[in-house]
Order: sequence, then C-alpha cells, then structure tokens
Amino acid sequence: MPLKQRHSLLTVVTVTSLGLLAASPLLAWDGVVEKQTFEMQDFTTQGGETIPELAVGWEAYGELNDARDNAILITHFFSGTSNAAGRYDPDGEPTGYWDAIIGPGKPLDTDEYYIIASDTLVNLNAHAPNVTTTGPASINPDTGKPWGMDFPVVTIRDFVEVQRALLESQGIESLHAVMGASMGALQAFEWASAYPDKVDRLIPVIGGGVADPWLLATLSAWAAPIRLDANWNEGNYYDGEPPTDGLKEALKLVTLNANHWQWANETFNRDWADEERDPAQDINARYAIEQTLDDVAAARAELSDANHLLYLVRANQLFMAGHGDSLEEGLAAIDAPTLMLYSENDLVFAPEGVRRTAELIEADGTEVTLETLEGNRGHLDGVVAIDQASETLRAFLK
Amino acid sequence: MPLKQRHSLLTVVTVTSLGLLAASPLLAWDGVVEKQTFEMQDFTTQGGETIPELAVGWEAYGELNDARDNAILITHFFSGTSNAAGRYDPDGEPTGYWDAIIGPGKPLDTDEYYIIASDTLVNLNAHAPNVTTTGPASINPDTGKPWGMDFPVVTIRDFVEVQRALLESQGIESLHAVMGASMGALQAFEWASAYPDKVDRLIPVIGGGVADPWLLATLSAWAAPIRLDANWNEGNYYDGEPPTDGLKEALKLVTLNANHWQWANETFNRDWADEERDPAQDINARYAIEQTLDDVAAARAELSDANHLLYLVRANQLFMAGHGDSLEEGLAAIDAPTLMLYSENDLVFAPEGVRRTAELIEADGTEVTLETLEGNRGHLDGVVAIDQASETLRAFLK
Repeated sequence: MPLKQRHSLLTVVTVTSLGLLAASPLLAWDGVVEKQTFEMQDFTTQGGETIPELAVGWEAYGELNDARDNAILITHFFSGTSNAAGRYDPDGEPTGYWDAIIGPGKPLDTDEYYIIASDTLVNLNAHAPNVTTTGPASINPDTGKPWGMDFPVVTIRDFVEVQRALLESQGIESLHAVMGASMGALQAFEWASAYPDKVDRLIPVIGGGVADPWLLATLSAWAAPIRLDANWNEGNYYDGEPPTDGLKEALKLVTLNANHWQWANETFNRDWADEERDPAQDINARYAIEQTLDDVAAARAELSDANHLLYLVRANQLFMAGHGDSLEEGLAAIDAPTLMLYSENDLVFAPEGVRRTAELIEADGTEVTLETLEGNRGHLDGVVAIDQASETLRAFLK
Repeated sequence: MPLKQRHSLLTVVTVTSLGLLAASPLLAWDGVVEKQTFEMQDFTTQGGETIPELAVGWEAYGELNDARDNAILITHFFSGTSNAAGRYDPDGEPTGYWDAIIGPGKPLDTDEYYIIASDTLVNLNAHAPNVTTTGPASINPDTGKPWGMDFPVVTIRDFVEVQRALLESQGIESLHAVMGASMGALQAFEWASAYPDKVDRLIPVIGGGVADPWLLATLSAWAAPIRLDANWNEGNYYDGEPPTDGLKEALKLVTLNANHWQWANETFNRDWADEERDPAQDINARYAIEQTLDDVAAARAELSDANHLLYLVRANQLFMAGHGDSLEEGLAAIDAPTLMLYSENDLVFAPEGVRRTAELIEADGTEVTLETLEGNRGHLDGVVAIDQASETLRAFLK
C-alpha cells in the first residue's frame, strides 16, 4: 500500500475509533520524515587529519525500543542521501529511494525496527535543502573560507566512524542489520568487517568488497569532466562560477554507467531532441536521449558540488573492506550472516567481484546468501527494483 | 607463420632456387604496405553538400586478378585506419590490426584475394603520418582555411560512396566480400544494403544494423569532453592550442567502453601511479590504471583531431542500415550471405541488437551465420581476438 494512502487511512481510523487500535501499532510511522543534524566537535580521519565542527544530516523511521537493539542502519549510494524512505513534505509524494521496502508492514518494518540513515561526509548533494554534510564546500572554521581541495581525503571507513558516533549518541551499541546499495554496500561491508560484534546482519546490495581496477577507471572517468572544466580552477570556485558543465557531464556518465543498454533501448528511441534540428544536417543538433540525460544531469548539478564528487570518487577508489593488508583478511573479519543482492548486468560493480566477495566472506563458515536482482537497469536495479527481494529481506531480518 | 619470418624465408628461397617456386605464388605479399592516395575533384554528400578536392588514403594486400572479382574490402573501426594488415616500415613489426587473419595462407589469403582498405572521411587519426583523410582539419579550398565545424555532416553512406569511387577507379565492380569491425561493420552493412548486387559476402564484426539509443548516448559521452575543453572554442582551434585534454578524456572513454571489466581486472591491479604519492593522502594522486589509460590516450591524441572525433560520433549516431524508412527495410535489402561475429560482453553494440540485426537480415531467406567471439576484451575482441574465427572465415570466403 502506498505510504500516502496508509497515512490517510490511519488518520481516519485514529479519529473515529482510537480505542480499537490498541493492539495495532498506534504510532505506525506515517511516512513523514524529519531531517535532523548530528554534530561533532572534532573528527579525526583515518588519514590522521582533523575536521573540526563536523555535521551530517540524519533521519529515522520507526521507534527505537527500550533495549535499543532494533536498529537497522541504511547507508546510501554515491549520489544518494539519507532519504531512504518517506517524504519531507507532509503533503508531498514519497521521495525515499527504498520506499518499496521500508515502512509499516514492509520488509524493513517500521512497526518493528528503528531504521536510521545519515548523509555521508562529502555528500554529493551538498546544496540540496534537506542534506547536511561536511566536505570541500563547507567552511573551514580555521580559515573562514570553503575548504576546497584542502579538505582531507576521506574514506568509507570515515563515513562509518561518523555513523558510529551518531549511533552512540543515541545509545545504540549494536545493529540488527546494516544495509546499503553500491557505495552503501561498501559502508555496510566496512561496518561488518571493522565491528563484527556490532553488526548482527549484513545486507550489501550491488557492491563488492573492493574497488577493482575496472571501478578505479570508471570512477576516474566520472571525475575527469570536472577537472576539464576551466571553472573548476583546481577546486577554487566558491567565489565565482562553479564548474557546472563539467559536473553535468560527470553526472551523465554516472547515470549511463549505473544503467544498462536494456534500459536505454527499452526507454528511448532515435527521436531528435528538437524536431526542427536534424542531426544529419546540423553537427550541433542532438538526439532526444542526449537531451534527456542532459536535463536530468542539469537538475542534479544544481544541488550538487563538483569537489564533493571528486572526494566521493576517491573514497570509493580507496575502498577495500577492513583496510587490512588483504581483501581476504578484511572479508574474513565479517561474522554477521550476510545477504548479498546483485545484478548480473551491473556495469559498475563487476558480478565476478561480487561473487568473489561472497566466497571470501563464506570461506571461514560465515553464512552468505547471494541472490540476483532482475530488471533492465543493471546496477540501478539494486535501487529501483529492490521490491523483488522483499520476501528474502523479510525472512533474513527475522 | 608471422609475416616477418615468412618474408625472410621467401627472400632466401627466391635467391637460391627461384625456378622451383613457379608453382607457388611467386609474388606472395611480403607484408610491406604502400600507402596510396585516392582523390576526387568533387564529392556530394548524402546531405547534399559538396566537398571539393576530397582525398583519402588506401592500401591493398595481394593482387587484383584479371576478372577483377577477387577483391575484399576491409572497412575500419572508429579509431582505426586503413592499416588492416602489414607494416609500412620494411624493417618494422607488423602494425595492421587484423594481421592475424590477413596474409599469405591466412583466412583472408593474400595469395588468393585482393584485399583493399581505405581511410574514411573525417578519420580520427588526421595527423598520423600514414593517414590521408578529408574532414574539419582539412583546408577548405574555398576559404584557404581549415573547415572546422563548417565541414558538412557526413554519414556512413558517404564513407561507402567514397570507397565505391575508389573501387571503380580500379575497375572493381563487385566485391568478393566486405568485412569490417564496429564502425567498419556499419560500413559493411551499408554496402550490402545499398548495393546488394555488388557484395557477394558480408562480414560485419562487433556491430549491429542501427545505432540504438544506448549507442547514441555512449557516443555522446565520447564527444562531451572535447566540447568541455575551453581550447575547443567551437571547433576553431587550428590557429592556436588544440583541445588536447578534452580529446584525451574522449579517447580514454573510447578505450574503457570498448573493453570490458574482465580485461581491466585481469590486466591491472590497485597499484598507485607513483609509489610516493598515496591516493589516501593526496586527492590529486592517481592509480596505475588511470595513468596507463592516460598515457595511451595522450599518445593517440597527438595523432588525432578533436573535431574529427565529433564528426565520427555523428556519423555513427546517424547510422541505420540502408537509410530507408525502417531498419527492417534496410536490412531486408541485404542479399549477400552474411557472417556476423560478435561478443556477448560487448558494451558498445548491445548483443541484443546484433542478434536482432541477424534476424532481420535472415527474415527474407538470406543466409546468416551468427558466431560469438570469446575473450576478456568485450567489444575489442572483434579486433584483437579475431584469429579465433579463422576457420569460420576461411570456409565462409570459399
């Protein structure tokens, strides 16, 4: 049932027959999200640098129980935010990327679990109204100016450490589960590897245990258009024109790589962008698919920060679960029963690497379930088509 | 037997016992290529524009027979040239991209066939010493200056029409076969669709009958970095600094898309580009795979022209076999027995589109053989791993 309908229904029922609801979850989450901010006076990165006055946004769905042991942490993907479920606007449509599986009665049941998600450091959507993050676009309190490329390199482990502090601030010492897609899967692996005693269940979606050379190169390609844009100016653009064209091209590559040719060919055709400009006559004319990707990227670029994208690229490139000497060691440290969901058509995280990750976690007897996701979106099926894993998720979380 | 060895052997044999060789092909091609130029006074594009003083390079391996019916035309891929086989330097190593299958005794047997290849219009390698092409970097005789973006949009059919004129200049009215990889496959489809009476056999490798939306978007991504480079200057850079950085990024994308994650992950590791610059400490440090792709692209960029790349992108985007109202019609026009070779891991031409193309050619009873190529290069297996199709090719050409 869509959240909005349920919301209306509950409102009506509550008004007319409140007493009858005693056996039902009276406070069933209504889908409205309150975005909050978590601050740290000082944060020391894995690289040994200090970030003063760190702040990230967070949100939660459902209620933390008295034992504080019903928390599920959701970690977000490269271009994502903490908004995994629900809507900020009480009268708006749901905006959460995993609304399909998070809510009352859904696999990640907000009547049962306390589901919490936070914006990462160097979050891409630095200029989005509901995002709070700390990164190159933030003011460095020591200089009073934006950090720019002086911001320290941060890692997936740093993202995890901020989340750990956030959870501790709420008295949460262990997680019923940690679940994330893509870069969110990397954070989930890192949680389970670094803190095996704090993670009861691990659910990495469309991600592997290490950034393999293909991913290193793919991420590098995403960064390149920003560095090509003259407005980037080595990252010093906060007083002038930002490198919006480069950022747009970067986001177009992200969109294209995160999808699959099945999606492109089933969604688009060979129409021109402008029926009066024939690409056969005008070298600058375009096709509709080019224009659509451009429009989507332009809208996203308005809320994004180019330097943040470069720092996210680096955080992902650096990833190897557990930061040990070897991937084998990092994955062997994982003790939590693991459910891995992935797509054989993933063009970002090679399916071979995902399968290899599952084998390495399983090598010392840790229970691993590996399931494929179907669809025409490739990598993105882990975000937009997650509902097909609903029953698997429900059973795994019990 | 490698060409060079055969060359030495023949030299020795010819000197010591010439008379005994009468029954063997005395003039067996020795692998040395002479690059030649074909000129046209005027060429009218499919779009109705005139290109005066057109010139393209060409080369041939083997001898044209008296009936002039043993010619095989090889059409080159996006970043390729006419150099399908052999070497320009008598003392050098072979440089031809399909040396594995073209030569004396090889499937495309130069003792039997006259194999001819030409540089396309708007060839990418406009500044390579052995390439002759006409495009935006050429002087427009009407102005005395480089055409730049005033060069007319050209199509795969235009490439074919120049080849047709070249062949006619040698008295060749029909082809034993036309064979090409990727953009070369498009030219081959176009030949067989536009001139079914001139093409006896069709061999499209790693290409489909139409630029599908995925390819439109992929090609668009290749063009983007050039347009982002401030030196591009709307294509007017021939008096100043060319957009080398943008061209390099474009070529890196071509390399990445034309390969496959299997190749990246089997060829590279997570080594840093510079062992003294740790990517975890330095946001501008890089990984070895990034540096290698950069170095390869830099070397290629020196010989390439950025505007030519934009025109090639457009020629490929415009492609639909036969330029009819429908793909069905364009492919139905093909009568030649067809051998299609492709890779299921192709990230440029979706395998689904290749299979659909085969079905449409076959629909009216035309004989089609569809074979997969194995390897870890994806699209590029059609170029670098073509030797696995040797016996299929040999049989098909008989």
